[in-house]
Amino acid sequence: MIQQIDHLGIAVRNLDEACQYYEDSLGLHCHGREEVESQKVRTAFFDCGGVHLELLEPTSEESPIAKFLEKNGEGIHHIAFRTDDIAGQLGQAAQSGIRLIHEVPFEGAANKLVAFLHPKSTHGVLTEFCMSKPS
Amino acid sequence: MIQQIDHLGIAVRNLDEACQYYEDSLGLHCHGREEVESQKVRTAFFDCGGVHLELLEPTSEESPIAKFLEKNGEGIHHIAFRTDDIAGQLGQAAQSGIRLIHEVPFEGAANKLVAFLHPKSTHGVLTEFCMSKPS
Repeated sequence: MIQQIDHLGIAVRNLDEACQYYEDSLGLHCHGREEVESQKVRTAFFDCGGVHLELLEPTSEESPIAKFLEKNGEGIHHIAFRTDDIAGQLGQAAQSGIRLIHEVPFEGAANKLVAFLHPKSTHGVLTEFCMSKPS
Repeated sequence: MIQQIDHLGIAVRNLDEACQYYEDSLGLHCHGREEVESQKVRTAFFDCGGVHLELLEPTSEESPIAKFLEKNGEGIHHIAFRTDDIAGQLGQAAQSGIRLIHEVPFEGAANKLVAFLHPKSTHGVLTEFCMSKPS
């Protein structure tokens, strides 16, 4: 049911400086920016062969990304898997004993439904499922 | 010159338990295992829409993965970008001020040439370039 990796979330302290690295040093192209008020982050997206890199800079000390940066420093924050059945995917994970952060998907960036699994039960990887909202 | 994300390296303490999570909880398929003596790791590969997840369990306390686990616990260890010109990619990164761990690519897993950029100059993300060896 997982189709592919949708994106990688990468926590950064300064979005402009990080964008410059991905553009100048890696040669990738930034194809959009968005502020996600609910998560208190500014984001920039890079397409890399169909998988997006999503750079995340906190806009508030209350942002989950600010807390991540304080604890871990900059780095990969989460991996998001694209699915066509997010409820089924969450059900399969729960049934196999995985702790869910969200039992019910909510609306994330880019008009998608998203839900996270807890890294304590996913071998340290904060894991997101995401699905395009039915039109 | 970067074509796509080739793989994500994920450090785990126990390869069998981690494989069980990716198989049973996410529904992904393990398509191979390999021991990489030079890095002192056992690996298992999962294909996820053309991008591989490469689980890495250390086989020795001297393994770089053992040191990562000791410092950070389990989690995403590195991101590898596939390129058709690894020398050019390293040159572009160096020219823009990025610190290289390897100035000259070496032979990694799966018959590829690989080289790493230092996470201190890549906003916290240990970054690998990889290229299939010319036949």
